[in-house]
Amino acid sequence: MSKEDNSDLIQPVIPREHEIEIRVRYQETDAQGRVHHANYINYFEIGRIEMLRAGGVDYRKLEEDGLMLVVADVKCKYHIGAKYDDLLRLKTRVVRAKGVRVYHKYELSIGDELVCEGETTVAAINSQGEVVRLPDWLQLDAKKQPNSGR
Amino acid sequence: MSKEDNSDLIQPVIPREHEIEIRVRYQETDAQGRVHHANYINYFEIGRIEMLRAGGVDYRKLEEDGLMLVVADVKCKYHIGAKYDDLLRLKTRVVRAKGVRVYHKYELSIGDELVCEGETTVAAINSQGEVVRLPDWLQLDAKKQPNSGR
Amino acid sequence: MSKEDNSDLIQPVIPREHEIEIRVRYQETDAQGRVHHANYINYFEIGRIEMLRAGGVDYRKLEEDGLMLVVADVKCKYHIGAKYDDLLRLKTRVVRAKGVRVYHKYELSIGDELVCEGETTVAAINSQGEVVRLPDWLQLDAKKQPNSGR
Amino acid sequence: MSKEDNSDLIQPVIPREHEIEIRVRYQETDAQGRVHHANYINYFEIGRIEMLRAGGVDYRKLEEDGLMLVVADVKCKYHIGAKYDDLLRLKTRVVRAKGVRVYHKYELSIGDELVCEGETTVAAINSQGEVVRLPDWLQLDAKKQPNSGR
Repeated sequence: MSKEDNSDLIQPVIPREHEIEIRVRYQETDAQGRVHHANYINYFEIGRIEMLRAGGVDYRKLEEDGLMLVVADVKCKYHIGAKYDDLLRLKTRVVRAKGVRVYHKYELSIGDELVCEGETTVAAINSQGEVVRLPDWLQLDAKKQPNSGR
Repeated sequence: MSKEDNSDLIQPVIPREHEIEIRVRYQETDAQGRVHHANYINYFEIGRIEMLRAGGVDYRKLEEDGLMLVVADVKCKYHIGAKYDDLLRLKTRVVRAKGVRVYHKYELSIGDELVCEGETTVAAINSQGEVVRLPDWLQLDAKKQPNSGR
Repeated sequence: MSKEDNSDLIQPVIPREHEIEIRVRYQETDAQGRVHHANYINYFEIGRIEMLRAGGVDYRKLEEDGLMLVVADVKCKYHIGAKYDDLLRLKTRVVRAKGVRVYHKYELSIGDELVCEGETTVAAINSQGEVVRLPDWLQLDAKKQPNSGR
Repeated sequence: MSKEDNSDLIQPVIPREHEIEIRVRYQETDAQGRVHHANYINYFEIGRIEMLRAGGVDYRKLEEDGLMLVVADVKCKYHIGAKYDDLLRLKTRVVRAKGVRVYHKYELSIGDELVCEGETTVAAINSQGEVVRLPDWLQLDAKKQPNSGR
């Protein structure tokens, strides 16, 4: 019954909002001279992962331990096209995380200009591919966190 | 005023629905052993292009002539993950094409199984990046095509 | 000792040279208006796979059965840049296949123009990541195939 | 004859060797659970660009001013496969830069382990696609820089 070696003893605290910078790579642009629209979806994934890391969670380890977060849906609305070498600012926000799903929103900007806005739903599955409940520390229930100020 | 040399004299007829097959490439998979979710967005683009080609329109030539179709938004709902070497069937459908925008829907399947469903809005812009009216042959107005049966 | 259920009874015959067509995708181009140089490496991989398929070998099944072909080295010399929607012709050739390695050469062209030339070495490994001998049908020994004419 | 507005007055000093860190993205892995071999070629490009930036040169501006560096050939020898989320260390080195070409070598490692080694030749071209002489500050001639000390 000992839990000494259980990393769950210290619960990670995932931020609800996190910001990172991403430098546009040449390979991510296309012949229209801008970032190919599919590549923004990859940026969102980086935002999710780095948000977890900021809360002390190594997503790779999570997968090695048998929990995968798979994307159930994605939306993206494009405003302007980012160019090669632009330094993008990606704001990732957890809107809701309850049961088996986490809902994120994303805002990607260059300086004051909004490049695109996105939304995703990710679902937790185990190594058998079965949908499973999110770990407690990933749950974000508005009622239980009344002082979160958002 | 002569229009003899105007290729518009013969108007292309773009199908409203078109189907292609796409073989999953190794590079499109990820460490979860399935197609990375962002890559389905690329498949949709191929579907749009091949639909135009089926109607006699070379999208590259369209761009060379100064008309670009840029993606304004995209949605994708994922059902199952396609695997390396799967032969996917992509059904692309024009839902509406009016004014400056074309709305497409997509269904991607392996045999009878639905892999994912998508939607995009593409907008016509000229070489100065200004939003412009779709060419007539790309317009799809329900009232003018009463017998389209969909 | 029975080998009745052994699919090896009918040995695949892999062609030593195989040609396919590849249509350049928008996502494969970059802001210089040409195919990004790293993407040609992906085309080579498609060439190898389709060469196996032409010989009756399903590479995915090979992997499922525990044999992986991993790339040990790659070279590519670029001549001209392919553009969006170009229809490329890729010629893949097995130069040597002996012991644990297969050596391929590639020529990628648009019409009569050579786009790039490549070479790769792929090594056979088992599911434990150990280097293993190529299956007999993948071996290509000049002495044993005196009439191959090359 | 005034050169007041000529940025060439202050010559950039490009380091001959430069090191960066690159975090492996999920999208860069493939179903073998490792970084897809073509993606290392993209890392090399990032290495070249960041080496220029470390010397005060903005490659995007270089292109806007009409000088492009295009890849003429690439070689890569793979040792081990990097995994998702690995933090890679990329050492980029200018071996020679004379006339119209720059020769780079690359070493990519995880800790003490060498992941892969690469080489590229890039050639300078102008906006008409003509091969042109490298800017002086990009030339690296062993005889003329005996004191470079690296």
